[in-house]
Amino acid sequence: MTSEQLFQQIQKKRSFLCVGLDTDVTKIPQHLLACENPVFEFNRQIIDATADYTIAYKPNLAFYETQGAEGWITLEKTVNYIREKYPEIFIIADAKRGDIGNTSKMYAQTFFEKMNFDSITVSPYMGSDSVTPFFGYPGKWVIILALTSNAGADDFQQTVDKEKGIKLFENVLQKSQEWGTSESLMYVVGATRAEMLTNVRKIVPEHFLLIPGVGAQGGSLADVAKYGFNAKCGLIVNSSRAIIYADKTEKFAEVAREKALEVQQEMSELLAQYEVVK
Amino acid sequence: MTSEQLFQQIQKKRSFLCVGLDTDVTKIPQHLLACENPVFEFNRQIIDATADYTIAYKPNLAFYETQGAEGWITLEKTVNYIREKYPEIFIIADAKRGDIGNTSKMYAQTFFEKMNFDSITVSPYMGSDSVTPFFGYPGKWVIILALTSNAGADDFQQTVDKEKGIKLFENVLQKSQEWGTSESLMYVVGATRAEMLTNVRKIVPEHFLLIPGVGAQGGSLADVAKYGFNAKCGLIVNSSRAIIYADKTEKFAEVAREKALEVQQEMSELLAQYEVVK
Repeated sequence: MTSEQLFQQIQKKRSFLCVGLDTDVTKIPQHLLACENPVFEFNRQIIDATADYTIAYKPNLAFYETQGAEGWITLEKTVNYIREKYPEIFIIADAKRGDIGNTSKMYAQTFFEKMNFDSITVSPYMGSDSVTPFFGYPGKWVIILALTSNAGADDFQQTVDKEKGIKLFENVLQKSQEWGTSESLMYVVGATRAEMLTNVRKIVPEHFLLIPGVGAQGGSLADVAKYGFNAKCGLIVNSSRAIIYADKTEKFAEVAREKALEVQQEMSELLAQYEVVK
Repeated sequence: MTSEQLFQQIQKKRSFLCVGLDTDVTKIPQHLLACENPVFEFNRQIIDATADYTIAYKPNLAFYETQGAEGWITLEKTVNYIREKYPEIFIIADAKRGDIGNTSKMYAQTFFEKMNFDSITVSPYMGSDSVTPFFGYPGKWVIILALTSNAGADDFQQTVDKEKGIKLFENVLQKSQEWGTSESLMYVVGATRAEMLTNVRKIVPEHFLLIPGVGAQGGSLADVAKYGFNAKCGLIVNSSRAIIYADKTEKFAEVAREKALEVQQEMSELLAQYEVVK
């Protein structure tokens, strides 16, 4: 998928919402446990209920791996379901992988070729050769962790480089531009610190940013839009628990749709307010 | 497993060798492809051939994930096989995971409870709450990436913190000691820069270090011992390709055993030379 195709979807749906499929079998409605594959059935209903308002889905690998082999089958079924029924929707493997070159190459093959994801989140700690093998798949995207939304993010990401005088996450933004372009590379930037998006935008004005931390993790959508928008939106904002676990009865999908619609409406207003979508 | 049990094994086998099970179905001997599960059959024969000289096995998750659900079954079978036949051997999930707290907690459950690994490699980029959920499993270990052996390691790990005047990998070593002890925490330190082990040992004198990069990735075992040994060895040195792919005929396991023996003999001499094992 190109950035232009992603922007077209944003314009059409007036939304930049990503729904995180952090599907935990202990948290889904009880009645689904009678299904052959409860997690897939939950995902299927959530996807059908929210696809009108959603430009991306982001399964979090941890929630599938915890089911072992069965989890991988569920993950594959989920990706295939989105791919076939909603081919315009962007699919993110939230896997936070990253290893030496030949190992990262295998991860790239797994997630891009075998599993057919559009993108994968990658940790930058091991540097260039841990990230570059994920490039070279036209239309596929690498989403590098820059500034995350968790408490521990301050431990290292905010440390200042003595030589360059910039923070580690800024160094990651700067250095990684040698590896990919705004047509193959996005960044994770936490919404709990929306004001920092101003600094981020100085370094990467054109790149799409994946913003976790709106919803259950806190963070204001209005602030994210204010500091993060570029001319082509440039934002994918994720919400997981606040949408998928909004209700735990047989009406869960209906309520998830309502929650997604609420977010989409706020996004639509922000897109209009900042004249990103006319 | 306690550090004392690990040291007992080192004394008994006069070895600190870890064999990396980076099993690639395209690189294993052709005749195994007729087996029901060629990767497991390869692992089984490698394990039986090398267990006398090996204190740890380290499956690299990327090589299993690339086979999807089938790969997870192979991984589980491999861990169970080692666990049942060689219960004294330390098993490392080379997974390089790390995510926000509730997600890391799921990874910990997967690798420590469901899969029964002794340890997992973890990326420190996201800080404290991405790592701490892996603690709290007595006898299980977290192996944090500090200084890796790949070319890209210099991109960020060697940058100097303006405030503390130390490098990022040193900051990781220092900070992470607030999260775990030398009884629950180890570090990855690349062997391609053995002289840096002197600095590492100043910060973490007692911790075990997992050293990749001996063998196909380069790095001298004598230097690693010289700069890295502590009174209880404190080193687990990994070799993958140089042992498991030393031969590609029907004799592959026999040749792997010979290669492992060669490394064990060198290790035995170094353990004696530095009086780590009397």
